[in-house]
Amino acid sequence: MNFSSKILEQAVDHVSQLPGIGKRTALRLVLHLMRQPANQTAELAGSLSKMRHDLKFCTTCHNVSDNDLCEICASPKRDRTVLCVVEDIRDVMAIENTSQYRGLYHVLGGKISPMDGVGPQDLNVVSLVNRVKNEAVVELIFALSPTIEGDTTNFYIFKQLGDIPVNTSTIARGIAVGDELEFADEVTLGRSILHRVPYETSLKS
Amino acid sequence: MNFSSKILEQAVDHVSQLPGIGKRTALRLVLHLMRQPANQTAELAGSLSKMRHDLKFCTTCHNVSDNDLCEICASPKRDRTVLCVVEDIRDVMAIENTSQYRGLYHVLGGKISPMDGVGPQDLNVVSLVNRVKNEAVVELIFALSPTIEGDTTNFYIFKQLGDIPVNTSTIARGIAVGDELEFADEVTLGRSILHRVPYETSLKS
Repeated sequence: MNFSSKILEQAVDHVSQLPGIGKRTALRLVLHLMRQPANQTAELAGSLSKMRHDLKFCTTCHNVSDNDLCEICASPKRDRTVLCVVEDIRDVMAIENTSQYRGLYHVLGGKISPMDGVGPQDLNVVSLVNRVKNEAVVELIFALSPTIEGDTTNFYIFKQLGDIPVNTSTIARGIAVGDELEFADEVTLGRSILHRVPYETSLKS
Repeated sequence: MNFSSKILEQAVDHVSQLPGIGKRTALRLVLHLMRQPANQTAELAGSLSKMRHDLKFCTTCHNVSDNDLCEICASPKRDRTVLCVVEDIRDVMAIENTSQYRGLYHVLGGKISPMDGVGPQDLNVVSLVNRVKNEAVVELIFALSPTIEGDTTNFYIFKQLGDIPVNTSTIARGIAVGDELEFADEVTLGRSILHRVPYETSLKS
């Protein structure tokens, strides 16, 4: 692209470094900001700087946090005997939105994926094993995505736990609520039959 | 969405005010910045602030500019007798990229569109008429999009010109280069036949 302004070109360059945003979209966003009151841009720039500077990761569960300990880890209302292992903080938010879980979390920060160059040493696995060993954890729930990478990561953690006495479980895989049975893939449908639950149990949720 | 951090929530809120970016995308972008080195966020925030603060609009043609007069208006190499009327600065960039035009521009800043509440008073029409009146403009090229709004705007400007002696033209409308004739819409195909050009002329470009 042929910019008539160096300042504009630089702004577009920086915005287009964000994932999924190309030069054209960046230009559209930047021109939008130019048409808005100046304080909108100031607030955007300010909150991004503040976020990058002040936002912390919880020292216990690696969730994002305003303090050293996140709200969930600090809350006295949570069940400290259950630990839910998730890939990233968006999964924490998704599970929190269901209001069905009252235990604690552990954010791995990714999945083992040799294709993307992510190995176990890049994830928060050591701190997870230490938590299970040193805290009063009774159950560990694997809540990673049901993909090959997710399953590999689950298995790696399971092996690392060794003979630490803890129950492990994975979130249920089956037909999504509202889905038509005939359109479900075979693996999912197969698992949903293998892991069927007593009808009385299904009535409770 | 249920954020565990006020700082994160505020950053996501500000990013999601950009057009076409929802809360989920904003969260993805913000978390991406958290994973990148801190200076990337600092540069992004800095260049947005600088852009909003320092970027000017050319006092003559309303193109974006680092100075009071944009590079195109200031260039001694441009043909000052031809003026191309465009909707916004992206159109200037698009036409400049073709390297087929050596005249000057006039950026209207939009099209007359009662549906969107945009009237002639919101556009840079008065300054356009003054330029045509006071400068040595021989030809005015309407290069707005061939839509109802574009045609309306062209006609409004044409009427405003009154009896100022100037030739007016519009960019050619026809079959796009590389397009299949059978898939062209009727209006476009009809115009391309009505406004056919001598074969020798078509060989030159």
